[in-house]
Amino acid sequence: MKHIISPTDLTVSELNELLELSEEIIQNPKMFSDVCRGRKLATLFYEPSTRTRLSFEAAMINLGGSVLGFSSADSSSAAKGESVADTIRVISSYADICAIRHPKEGAPYVASTYSSIPVINAGDGGHNHPTQTFTDLLTIKNLKGRLHSLTIGFCGDLKFGRTVHSLINALARYENINYVLISPEELRVPTYIREEVLDANQIPYEEVRSLEDAMPKLDILYMTRVQRERFFNEEDYIRLKDIYILDMKKMAHAKNDMLVLHPLPRVNEIATEVDDDPRAVYFKQAEFGVYVRMALIMKLLEVV
Amino acid sequence: MKHIISPTDLTVSELNELLELSEEIIQNPKMFSDVCRGRKLATLFYEPSTRTRLSFEAAMINLGGSVLGFSSADSSSAAKGESVADTIRVISSYADICAIRHPKEGAPYVASTYSSIPVINAGDGGHNHPTQTFTDLLTIKNLKGRLHSLTIGFCGDLKFGRTVHSLINALARYENINYVLISPEELRVPTYIREEVLDANQIPYEEVRSLEDAMPKLDILYMTRVQRERFFNEEDYIRLKDIYILDMKKMAHAKNDMLVLHPLPRVNEIATEVDDDPRAVYFKQAEFGVYVRMALIMKLLEVV
Amino acid sequence: MKHIISPTDLTVSELNELLELSEEIIQNPKMFSDVCRGRKLATLFYEPSTRTRLSFEAAMINLGGSVLGFSSADSSSAAKGESVADTIRVISSYADICAIRHPKEGAPYVASTYSSIPVINAGDGGHNHPTQTFTDLLTIKNLKGRLHSLTIGFCGDLKFGRTVHSLINALARYENINYVLISPEELRVPTYIREEVLDANQIPYEEVRSLEDAMPKLDILYMTRVQRERFFNEEDYIRLKDIYILDMKKMAHAKNDMLVLHPLPRVNEIATEVDDDPRAVYFKQAEFGVYVRMALIMKLLEVV
Repeated sequence: MKHIISPTDLTVSELNELLELSEEIIQNPKMFSDVCRGRKLATLFYEPSTRTRLSFEAAMINLGGSVLGFSSADSSSAAKGESVADTIRVISSYADICAIRHPKEGAPYVASTYSSIPVINAGDGGHNHPTQTFTDLLTIKNLKGRLHSLTIGFCGDLKFGRTVHSLINALARYENINYVLISPEELRVPTYIREEVLDANQIPYEEVRSLEDAMPKLDILYMTRVQRERFFNEEDYIRLKDIYILDMKKMAHAKNDMLVLHPLPRVNEIATEVDDDPRAVYFKQAEFGVYVRMALIMKLLEVV
Repeated sequence: MKHIISPTDLTVSELNELLELSEEIIQNPKMFSDVCRGRKLATLFYEPSTRTRLSFEAAMINLGGSVLGFSSADSSSAAKGESVADTIRVISSYADICAIRHPKEGAPYVASTYSSIPVINAGDGGHNHPTQTFTDLLTIKNLKGRLHSLTIGFCGDLKFGRTVHSLINALARYENINYVLISPEELRVPTYIREEVLDANQIPYEEVRSLEDAMPKLDILYMTRVQRERFFNEEDYIRLKDIYILDMKKMAHAKNDMLVLHPLPRVNEIATEVDDDPRAVYFKQAEFGVYVRMALIMKLLEVV
Repeated sequence: MKHIISPTDLTVSELNELLELSEEIIQNPKMFSDVCRGRKLATLFYEPSTRTRLSFEAAMINLGGSVLGFSSADSSSAAKGESVADTIRVISSYADICAIRHPKEGAPYVASTYSSIPVINAGDGGHNHPTQTFTDLLTIKNLKGRLHSLTIGFCGDLKFGRTVHSLINALARYENINYVLISPEELRVPTYIREEVLDANQIPYEEVRSLEDAMPKLDILYMTRVQRERFFNEEDYIRLKDIYILDMKKMAHAKNDMLVLHPLPRVNEIATEVDDDPRAVYFKQAEFGVYVRMALIMKLLEVV
């Protein structure tokens, strides 16, 4: 039995298989509409998240399975002081697979060590969010045709943005990837990622301050939201949140086939005028999130 | 693709078709138990509502479909500042049809302009609540046998009660309808409805203060709840909430075949002693709400 | 039509049938995977409870049925002042069976008197929680092979613990049961249970203060959580909560085939080191909770 706690819990080869299965699903979703009949997914969301939760639920329903769970810690036994270890042992009797979002880093890992069903980390604090990373990879692979030989810009909150850290890590396993890290000084990629992931693997990257200047060289622009909840004070948030806004003026400097990705929800870091540009693929990306989760559930339940 | 934002989004002819389909469902519900197999309804409730949400969910399940969604804004991405426009574009990838309840008037309309799946307004503030209106119409049609030539009394909060405004509007399209508007001065039907709907269409109506006096002439009595949340101060609420209480004493003045409708939830505006009177059809009305939503989902998904 | 408000709503013979059906399900769960196709369970949880709610949902899904409902009073019409009587009459149109958890004692009973579908009490305040009791009985019967001739220790909060009261009541109907009631003075079994259940039926019991001393004679040890929410002041809670902690040192005094049960959630009243002891069956007990609820739903819907 396999758990998915970090994106790198899949080898490159397993990941490629996952993405291939996702693309089969995209081609012919109806072929998979019954493969999880009688199976149950538990969605244990100790922290609210519409998109991720509903994406998992849509995935399981698309496979013919069923869903049960909770969408916030208030309506769970956590309020009564139960440990994640105990909860997962009980949930193991109720469901065949589970997706856990938890505000504490490492909680899904702890759960996995006590679980008798596959555990998927659906986001643990500022730590990991592997299915978002798989979604990002599927989006790039499907729309660019490859996961190697790409120049990828990450823009916005590169300090706290776990989706950025995860994707940097995941792409570091492919060849000929160049990173352009676009952020204010205060929100730079953490040192451990620069040293342990980029430098250690001799991956070329540059850190820049200007989104506009970086645009022309990018194959992919990965925008992120400056999340209010990651800031210690309101003043910093207000000063920084609007600095790296993508608009059509900046888009004019980009390649014709550059893709704009965003993990969503977006607040105002991408002007809505960009939405109609064919290079803006963040809503398509959300759709891919369902397919890759379908593929992941199938792999973990071994129904393929 | 069609959205249902206001009750008048359906022509009279489409509405009649909807009600006919609803009555077919009432006759033979099992015939429809599989028509939405593999389809998903998203219930996006930014404001809690047990009855409406569960009614939609029951409807979709009765059709063999599945449901996903959220039951309050707290557990949604709205808390992170996402616009309804973005949410619906994502949800469009997750589901085949959606029902939105939102505290802001117009939010479901905005959603519909960005959606690639049919959007049903499940209540937007004090504005519209079309499936309640369809439920009311089905109840009248099914139990009275017609939607024309009726004297209908509306009682209670006619100022803020959106179900009242919607039903007045909807019935204004049928022939020979007389309205008796029964309310305290403070909760009269708003001027724009009297002028733009009633006067403009030369529909006869009278405004009265006494429920008891109005009873003998009514074919239908539509009671409404005086909602605490619509009042600006507690004192007004307490003074007015108990004035128009329906009890058996008042029922004695009514026709033998008068029907009492109520959108529910009821607090104390109808004494519980009335519940056993065969003319009290508000619980039957709640049941009809499931059938009409089944019919609406079928129409919008074009499975009939 | 039958409702289950109290464990004793089933005769001993009906209860035995229920447990037998549960054991058939344990033997061959797939045989029942479609018996409730097209049926809907409403879970009306006016008070949060992950375990109980998800256990009911898992049970219904395992039977091929569907689930709708709410998981806290906030997202229900109760917030608008609707009575349980009205809610259940509406829910009767939406679902085929319902499970109600309510903070007020007697609320599920009131619901049952207005309902046209079977009502299962899923816990009403400090009162009853019959499906927990059925779960406990199934666990004992399945793992001990009998429900008679047993010495059962109840440990912890015997004053407020409704699962304890229910199980004492339920087992009082079987032959040759001995009770050992292990608690601090402040949390003794209430007088009415000692007088009306135990003394009235001439059932032997002893009240003791030391868990360790009681261990050697027990066939079953039923541990309970000292619930913070049952205390009037924090100080009492802190003083008492840790007194009756089960650990391996105490387990050393127990019979080799003694079983440790716990209704869960567990906070720290059982040291986690005990979890790996084969006599610790509380997680298995949670699993049995699904089977017994499957059996109960089948019985109430008369699909067997």
